Amino acid sequence: MSSTAGQVIKCKAAVAWEAGKPLVIEEVEVAPPQAGEVRLKILFTSLCHTDVYFWEAKGQTPLFPRIFGHEAGGIVESVGEGVTHLKPGDKALPVFTGECGECPHLVHAGCVAKINPEAPLDKVCILSCGICTGLGATVNVAKPKPGSSVAIFGLGAVGLAAAEGARISGASRIIGVDLVSSRFELAKKFGVNEFVNPKDHDKPVQQVIAEMTNGGVDRAVECTGSFQAMISAFECVHDGWGTAVLVGVPNKDDAFKTHPMNFLNERTLKGTFYGNYKPRTDLPTVVEKYMKGELELEKFITHTVPFSEINKAFDYMLKGESIRCIIRMEE
Amino acid sequence: MSSTAGQVIKCKAAVAWEAGKPLVIEEVEVAPPQAGEVRLKILFTSLCHTDVYFWEAKGQTPLFPRIFGHEAGGIVESVGEGVTHLKPGDKALPVFTGECGECPHLVHAGCVAKINPEAPLDKVCILSCGICTGLGATVNVAKPKPGSSVAIFGLGAVGLAAAEGARISGASRIIGVDLVSSRFELAKKFGVNEFVNPKDHDKPVQQVIAEMTNGGVDRAVECTGSFQAMISAFECVHDGWGTAVLVGVPNKDDAFKTHPMNFLNERTLKGTFYGNYKPRTDLPTVVEKYMKGELELEKFITHTVPFSEINKAFDYMLKGESIRCIIRMEE
Repeated sequence: MSSTAGQVIKCKAAVAWEAGKPLVIEEVEVAPPQAGEVRLKILFTSLCHTDVYFWEAKGQTPLFPRIFGHEAGGIVESVGEGVTHLKPGDKALPVFTGECGECPHLVHAGCVAKINPEAPLDKVCILSCGICTGLGATVNVAKPKPGSSVAIFGLGAVGLAAAEGARISGASRIIGVDLVSSRFELAKKFGVNEFVNPKDHDKPVQQVIAEMTNGGVDRAVECTGSFQAMISAFECVHDGWGTAVLVGVPNKDDAFKTHPMNFLNERTLKGTFYGNYKPRTDLPTVVEKYMKGELELEKFITHTVPFSEINKAFDYMLKGESIRCIIRMEE
Repeated sequence: MSSTAGQVIKCKAAVAWEAGKPLVIEEVEVAPPQAGEVRLKILFTSLCHTDVYFWEAKGQTPLFPRIFGHEAGGIVESVGEGVTHLKPGDKALPVFTGECGECPHLVHAGCVAKINPEAPLDKVCILSCGICTGLGATVNVAKPKPGSSVAIFGLGAVGLAAAEGARISGASRIIGVDLVSSRFELAKKFGVNEFVNPKDHDKPVQQVIAEMTNGGVDRAVECTGSFQAMISAFECVHDGWGTAVLVGVPNKDDAFKTHPMNFLNERTLKGTFYGNYKPRTDLPTVVEKYMKGELELEKFITHTVPFSEINKAFDYMLKGESIRCIIRMEE
């Protein structure tokens, strides 16, 4: 039992006081875990685009002050009443915990996955959100068959993870779609072997893709959150069997709109959160995949900064320079 | 070989010359089947709502003159070059043949299913379109588990067949949704055990259903073709696992519209044509299900008229009096 168990503790947090303004590192108090909760000491966190989304607070109801950092890895500091699958000292990844912190924080035990103690937290922490989200969207939801074609909309971290999922699944044509053509070069590392920039064409991108693929791709995965891209992703899958999977988080007033005939022609549209992974059950297995070398995580990690320079991580992401930037909590 | 094989033949057809106007029985000429085609002598046809839809020609590009009657059963009269799975005299059901006729007509061989010669064509002809469409939408596409809940939008023939599919699948709650409350009584025969009339409520029907079912039904099948019903059907399925299936044919300018978050909450939307049955492979098996008494077809057939009274069949359907009206070609 750690000496801090049962106590209110003080720790550092990077607090967002206002939309789009630099975070301020401050001391915050964290209460001991209640029944069913876990207090984690976070060692590494990784900036996810969802953090930036809520930080920018565009097209949503702003909620500040706010502590970000849901994509993270750490050590169990103490556990609340009734928590039996975790004990202090366990290496763990929190998953989709809402507003947890870049600091030891309160977390529901059902959202914490105990993982292999040998796993390097500075790498596997990225599995806690974005990478699993993209990977699972392809592997668990779209389920492309070996030799099939897959279009990936958006070549950010989640899209690249979705492409990695297509590569692992044995898809033979992986078509990246992005408004930034320079992303194609990097995306090749993740299995993307064809590229379409919608800006290069006078016709809708779904039509471009349908022409490239004799009627449409077998699967499409939408990772941008743009509703136009969602519509294109759905309409670019082949009738009769095509399936599109929505991953990107839309703005609050967006609408998905298509002619119903596109469904009647036997297309399927699904959405997913966290790639349909069940955190406690599935995440340790994904960590094992990395440990065995089947899944490559290093190529996602482009930057590392100490906690004191957390605002740099936001800069890298806003400029589109980083895929994942790891934030080291202990400097 | 029939004596008419290879000849242009004359036969009677009920021709629609104008949208919404009574059909006129006339003599038409039918060319011999070309390579890969089959000429069928139709013995029974059954009026399907799709016939009425194209006859009314609302919200679509009208195409007249036109011969209806795609839901039918007959005998192979002669076959074109290269057709090996059918021979003159075989009992067969044409499936989705576009504009075939209430008469011997030209049909692509791939659209003709050879069936059990013992099967009564005046019953199984209804499997050629609407009934299989609804049944298959549930059994092959929505796939409800035993004990699950299913909402059926629209209690016409296709919707009742979808309900029958839910009943056969062992669904425990089958919720019928229709603007005509009197349809509930009849629908009980097809397994519908709860009923919602959207007109009886101030809130959207998807909300009514979500409240009845602790968050939403497991499956929904949309059989009306109204885009509002499509949206309700999708939004009334439970997040996390719910699947909605679109069956009804929309008008040409309709749009399906929903907030993308409804997909991200792990709902699935699919559409189907002909219940995903493969005519030649699957239809003989469905006929066998009827022959064994597992599938009840008699309850769908409410009226029978001779060919000369074909316009009565349209009246029965327009007034909502019939589920299926069989038209006897030989009076």
